[in-house]
Amino acid sequence: MKNSIEKISIIGSGNVAWHLSTNFVKIGIKVTHIFGRNTIDVHSLCKKVNAIHSKSIKDLPKNQLVIICTPDDAISNICKSIDSSCPIAYTSGSVEIQSLPYREKIGVIYPLQTFSKNIKIKLNKVPFFIESTNNLLQKQLYNLTLKISNNVKIIDSIQRKKIHLAAVFVNNFTNHIIYQAQNYAKTNSINFKDLMPLLEETFNKINIESAFKSQTGPARRGDNNIIKQHIEILKGNSKEIYMLLSKSIKDTYNEKL
Amino acid sequence: MKNSIEKISIIGSGNVAWHLSTNFVKIGIKVTHIFGRNTIDVHSLCKKVNAIHSKSIKDLPKNQLVIICTPDDAISNICKSIDSSCPIAYTSGSVEIQSLPYREKIGVIYPLQTFSKNIKIKLNKVPFFIESTNNLLQKQLYNLTLKISNNVKIIDSIQRKKIHLAAVFVNNFTNHIIYQAQNYAKTNSINFKDLMPLLEETFNKINIESAFKSQTGPARRGDNNIIKQHIEILKGNSKEIYMLLSKSIKDTYNEKL
Repeated sequence: MKNSIEKISIIGSGNVAWHLSTNFVKIGIKVTHIFGRNTIDVHSLCKKVNAIHSKSIKDLPKNQLVIICTPDDAISNICKSIDSSCPIAYTSGSVEIQSLPYREKIGVIYPLQTFSKNIKIKLNKVPFFIESTNNLLQKQLYNLTLKISNNVKIIDSIQRKKIHLAAVFVNNFTNHIIYQAQNYAKTNSINFKDLMPLLEETFNKINIESAFKSQTGPARRGDNNIIKQHIEILKGNSKEIYMLLSKSIKDTYNEKL
Repeated sequence: MKNSIEKISIIGSGNVAWHLSTNFVKIGIKVTHIFGRNTIDVHSLCKKVNAIHSKSIKDLPKNQLVIICTPDDAISNICKSIDSSCPIAYTSGSVEIQSLPYREKIGVIYPLQTFSKNIKIKLNKVPFFIESTNNLLQKQLYNLTLKISNNVKIIDSIQRKKIHLAAVFVNNFTNHIIYQAQNYAKTNSINFKDLMPLLEETFNKINIESAFKSQTGPARRGDNNIIKQHIEILKGNSKEIYMLLSKSIKDTYNEKL
């Protein structure tokens, strides 16, 4: 079947490479070769999925899909080194196909998830976004990804960038806000475990109603007295964040500062 | 037993009043009277817990604990109207006992949780913080609260205010960041459901490792090219928030803008 990919090569040995490789192998796709800068990690992953540890990109099999799972800024140079017979897919949320050196068969498999090697993830629920300038490759990447996830969509580079931007808020920024709370708790003899039921419930509510409806707190009810007291306690970036987010919450509900 | 409270009155009929009343009744504490401005809600709650709907604060039974579950700015005036024979407890995270009109028996039962009437919460896991200027009342409030929660602590007004401040980050601010993402998704034809597995995993990670260690994304890896592109797409408060949080993440990991 010409639309079916059965063997792949992987470049990279980080969190995305780890989860993709192990999940592809699980459903019968062969990861034959892995190349990466971190030889220790590549070695571990090769052992895990029974792949050959390639010492050079030039050693990867010709005519076989290469999935690049590296940081964004490495993708362009890696593409140049890959044999022209090999279709390429990369996993970035933001790198546009048009920004890379032209080749006939290049595409994207973007998993919308945060991965850590040591934390198991049900990949079948992770949304994957597929894109290619080549219709056949696009179909092949779509079918390939559908074997590991139930949520696969074809979108363009612009929409992928927008989804990545939303993901920065959903993951990176919420995580940093929680870091601020953990850091504040640590320096003020507060046991963060006492805040965990609140954090859990905050997240639970999102499954039930919109964040717009769920909003509570001093800024939501326009309690400027408490806001002022809190700002006086805080310092540095946490103070700036408190002030800006309180202003933004007030603006959202048409309150005035 | 002089340390044991068996009957209480409630002022307010909002989310906190609702959850406290129903949970007290469940473990055998009688909620005899409820007073509140919203007569429809008071009526519903009275029906639910089999209490008398008081038409005035003056009608509340003498010598019986009154728990004030109202917004912060109403507490002081309500205290003035309550018969001097009644001990008082209020549920605010930020109002200091010293800021209220002096009385012999006044204290705090502060539940560290976000409540909605229509969302069930396991109260036994919710941390409660107790405070009173009167030792006997403090002990009584502690014992009373221990009947509905396994996590009850005695702290002072300053520490309570600090915990409330941490809670603003954990709940109010993470929720507003998610609102920003939902709002952005809505105006850019992104199905927010596709971001839910990422959000779920973001919260899961907090149970496993610190937010400091979990941080990923363009600001964490100093990818100024992507940050610049994202900032160009955004407008208004979401742009400001993106810029400040990216700066704060970089500062946290000692990167330079």
